[in-house]
Amino acid sequence: MVLVNGVECDSVNVHDRALHYGDGVFRTFRADNGVVNAWSRQFAKFKDDCERLALPSPEKSTLEADLAKVLAAHPDTVVKMMLTRGIGKRGYSFDPTMQTTRIVMASPIPQYPAGWAEQGVKVRVCDVKLASQPRLAGVKHLNRLENVLARSEWQESEFAEGLMLDFNGNVIAGTMTNLFIAARGVVATPDLSRCGVAGVTRERILDFARSQGIPVEVRDIALDELLNADEVLLANSVIGVWRVRELRDKRWNEARFTPAVKSKLCEHES
Amino acid sequence: MVLVNGVECDSVNVHDRALHYGDGVFRTFRADNGVVNAWSRQFAKFKDDCERLALPSPEKSTLEADLAKVLAAHPDTVVKMMLTRGIGKRGYSFDPTMQTTRIVMASPIPQYPAGWAEQGVKVRVCDVKLASQPRLAGVKHLNRLENVLARSEWQESEFAEGLMLDFNGNVIAGTMTNLFIAARGVVATPDLSRCGVAGVTRERILDFARSQGIPVEVRDIALDELLNADEVLLANSVIGVWRVRELRDKRWNEARFTPAVKSKLCEHES
Repeated sequence: MVLVNGVECDSVNVHDRALHYGDGVFRTFRADNGVVNAWSRQFAKFKDDCERLALPSPEKSTLEADLAKVLAAHPDTVVKMMLTRGIGKRGYSFDPTMQTTRIVMASPIPQYPAGWAEQGVKVRVCDVKLASQPRLAGVKHLNRLENVLARSEWQESEFAEGLMLDFNGNVIAGTMTNLFIAARGVVATPDLSRCGVAGVTRERILDFARSQGIPVEVRDIALDELLNADEVLLANSVIGVWRVRELRDKRWNEARFTPAVKSKLCEHES
Repeated sequence: MVLVNGVECDSVNVHDRALHYGDGVFRTFRADNGVVNAWSRQFAKFKDDCERLALPSPEKSTLEADLAKVLAAHPDTVVKMMLTRGIGKRGYSFDPTMQTTRIVMASPIPQYPAGWAEQGVKVRVCDVKLASQPRLAGVKHLNRLENVLARSEWQESEFAEGLMLDFNGNVIAGTMTNLFIAARGVVATPDLSRCGVAGVTRERILDFARSQGIPVEVRDIALDELLNADEVLLANSVIGVWRVRELRDKRWNEARFTPAVKSKLCEHES
């Protein structure tokens, strides 16, 4: 099911600025039994991202009405929620009062191999690097060609995810996941002030670690440091968390932080 | 008039990857009396850009059939021609054999103040910088948020265009134009190997200068160098060429190269 501005519809106007410029934002998350975990955080991030692009965010209640319709039809699903600048004339300039386009859609929950969630995943390092653009960094916007190109580097199903670096050799994220490392009792996650997307699950994991008194660092992480970490985690609001088991010649067996994170992410949050 | 895969239509499928990821390329150019000047170059660039994104380019004849339909209805128009990866499932990965979406649309020719083409334009420098991404540099792709944000910095109609710099202080382009400077008989245009879009009119101007025996340089140009140039030109396939008349405290009166370029761009090319 797809709702466009609250109405069931499978198309968008060909003049929508999302199509022409990627002029919009989105969030993706799963619903189980008709419930979205951490919806308040999803909405808060959506609203923040709208502000970053000077897009007028819909009211929370408007999105909730859309969600209710979609989840009534598909209680167990992946929801994608998008807001575009709307239907414009040709050219980059836009009228700040123009009507946005709101899209809420349900897709099947992806069926990954069961072993991935349980025993961890094998990952690779992508050749495509993330460009440094502080004006867009952190925002889940619709300009995602870097991710598309990175994801197109492999077809082998053995790799669950590809890690993306910036041009300085820092690991920033997976193509669709945020990333954490744990080493000697300290948890670190990449600084996303120059590139990358700051997901809700990343925020939940940061909050959880802090609540446990675990020292948390948000900073640059070189690939070598990741390879020497005790534990590497990938997370997003669809998969939850995957432990990295294998990257290049490195194997990881340690799983101290991952099970605690996994259990925390299952707890319901409004 | 809008053609989607050759059929008149004003919408695209909501699962099109252009909408979700900006996964596609485009070109924009004008037609006068049903004729597109330098169409062969437009097609060549379109095809090159498709290759850069591993998109299968349509045949030239297919695009020409679309163009003929659109120009029969709108002989004097701005044409936008897009190719998207097509209708996909959720997620960044795609099937390389998937069916692309071809969009050809006509829009009114923009009516700029007559003085702009004749006496030159006033421009400003944008705060938004262009990120360095060699994998996408030069390509007219659908990830255009940098241009959108830059163009949103001003509403004043006195400014015809905004210049965009990279993070090293080099001038790269206008939000919708390529840029040339002329100084002491030498013409220079920014190197677009790290960011920017390489337009057809830029190529035509480079070829023209070379054909006239004018030394041409494609290289980094700092803003200060531009401010000290004898002449500054902005060009694209809709406006042709505009001379820059005013930027910050600087005024330009010299117009040696511009009239010759203008006259050359009017000559018909297949």
